[in-house]
Amino acid sequence: MKKQLLILGLCGLLFGCKNNSEEKTTQKDDGEYELLEKAQSLFQPISAMDMKEPDPDKVDLGKHLFFDTRLSGEGNISCNSCHNLNTYGVDNERFSPGDAPGTIGNRNSPTVFHAALHHMQFWDGRAEDVEEQAGGPILNPVEHNIKDEEELVNRLKEVDLYQDLFAKAYGDEEDPITFENITNAIGAFERILIPEGRFDKYLEGDQDALSEKEKKGLNSFIESGCITCHSGVALGGQMLQKFGLYHDYWIHTESEDIDLGLYDISDKESDKYFFKVPGLRNIVHTAPYFHDGSVDDLAETVRIMGKLQRDVDLSEEEVDNITAFFESLTADIPDDVKKSPFEEEE
Amino acid sequence: MKKQLLILGLCGLLFGCKNNSEEKTTQKDDGEYELLEKAQSLFQPISAMDMKEPDPDKVDLGKHLFFDTRLSGEGNISCNSCHNLNTYGVDNERFSPGDAPGTIGNRNSPTVFHAALHHMQFWDGRAEDVEEQAGGPILNPVEHNIKDEEELVNRLKEVDLYQDLFAKAYGDEEDPITFENITNAIGAFERILIPEGRFDKYLEGDQDALSEKEKKGLNSFIESGCITCHSGVALGGQMLQKFGLYHDYWIHTESEDIDLGLYDISDKESDKYFFKVPGLRNIVHTAPYFHDGSVDDLAETVRIMGKLQRDVDLSEEEVDNITAFFESLTADIPDDVKKSPFEEEE
Repeated sequence: MKKQLLILGLCGLLFGCKNNSEEKTTQKDDGEYELLEKAQSLFQPISAMDMKEPDPDKVDLGKHLFFDTRLSGEGNISCNSCHNLNTYGVDNERFSPGDAPGTIGNRNSPTVFHAALHHMQFWDGRAEDVEEQAGGPILNPVEHNIKDEEELVNRLKEVDLYQDLFAKAYGDEEDPITFENITNAIGAFERILIPEGRFDKYLEGDQDALSEKEKKGLNSFIESGCITCHSGVALGGQMLQKFGLYHDYWIHTESEDIDLGLYDISDKESDKYFFKVPGLRNIVHTAPYFHDGSVDDLAETVRIMGKLQRDVDLSEEEVDNITAFFESLTADIPDDVKKSPFEEEE
Repeated sequence: MKKQLLILGLCGLLFGCKNNSEEKTTQKDDGEYELLEKAQSLFQPISAMDMKEPDPDKVDLGKHLFFDTRLSGEGNISCNSCHNLNTYGVDNERFSPGDAPGTIGNRNSPTVFHAALHHMQFWDGRAEDVEEQAGGPILNPVEHNIKDEEELVNRLKEVDLYQDLFAKAYGDEEDPITFENITNAIGAFERILIPEGRFDKYLEGDQDALSEKEKKGLNSFIESGCITCHSGVALGGQMLQKFGLYHDYWIHTESEDIDLGLYDISDKESDKYFFKVPGLRNIVHTAPYFHDGSVDDLAETVRIMGKLQRDVDLSEEEVDNITAFFESLTADIPDDVKKSPFEEEE
């Protein structure tokens, strides 16, 4: 591109030539190149992350645990029930049903895809990484409903398959089946759930990876300030932010209950309504939206975010383009990764 | 205010009366009341923080340590050298001179005032609280230049005054003079450095605490998006953010070196140029600005922030009003608190 500009410039200098159609192309290309450069300064492709490959034995064990309903009190749910790998790591429910009949969570289940790229886990950011996160739902009475760590460890110790898998993954330990190793292995499995999408190709320099409309949407996404929070490799997941900076969120989301967010665990007035900024990868497939799944429609979600966080009324064109841009964030994982290991073995 | 509106409303209903001057006043008051309500949803006065009063013996010990040059290798500096309580907790230098001749820090010394209200410490947020922070500079060769924890502990053990003060503050411990207790006591002292300013009065409901111009500035501060990061009780200090969201910061700050921020300790591509969002209390007195003290003028700092973080050219009126608003964030601490205890005793 720079070479092309130089040639055009030289042409002008040497021959005083002027070709409108050429100029137009250059301008357009310039704008596109600027957009790419801007995007590259705000986001990173997954390939740039230089992540340590997790140990395949731990991943294999983690995958079994992820799909195993033994990890719930009555055997009614597995991690995959709420974080279904066949539907982009979510169950598309507002709140997810728990193991015990009639129980239900109180915050929307976020996708496990790309969660390993985030700086914190849970809607209030209370866990540092996917390993720490994995332990939470297992012991939660309205989720996996396991009484305590010991109950689960003892249960798994009775299964020959797990005796084998834990020995393979943690063979250097005297007593490999521990709660810590359970969550560690689930985390290892989650660390491979980071598929690349078209937006990664774009960030790597392939300008054709995004359509014109998607590029317009990317530009609106940048210019309207979404990137203040939704930046980095996961387009979010890096910080906590007040949901409803300019207006009470529940007025716009029509939430049934007012969730106080971080305040619930910190008891600090200044933490009211602070939630983790969710990552946006695969967003077109992870409805319903927000911490309480209060909004089903993605365009409406974009509109509400403009109002709540920037106090602007995004135009319909902007909303439409931004929503189109989100299509480029879609990324699936190979069938063999998302297939339950128990299906294979049965 | 609501009562007044009701009366006016009733008046209109019952008598069809219309008094233009009254309506105007109501409208203006409405706008002012809305601004206050908006501000109250974004910021908190210090009085709302419900903070635990630190133990007075620890505070007293911490104050001695804060002012004591024994806490540096050659005895050339104390905490107060860079965080001078007589000049709003800073030294107004770009970078601060260290204990060893010719040494100098590489990031601007932030104020200790109100630091205890922040969620993290240091420009890269690497310490969780003021206690953890206090240990950093003491052992840094270009700051206090103490070789190791033991050196300092042994040094203080030889001082009768400290034998007394540590015994008072940590008398329940067998060996009260430890490095941990040194930093703990300094932190306790810093926890009382949270003076209230006029903006606190305003947030408590006193609309006259701010001038008209300051209120205009507050409104611009909110409407132009500064509050996305500068919110809460400290108007910042809650999160890390990329400095230079829309443009490379060094182009605008004319920084001599490019500091990579959080990346330096995390080695993650997505952490490049992320710094802690500084709190803005006492900002009119804490020049020069930014992590590298690259800009002296506050109005210019505001202008640059608009450009870098929101990609807007703030009007001169907006800059002027926002800068005026910052005056209301000024708060001093009583003379007896900021006077060196060694002056008293000598």
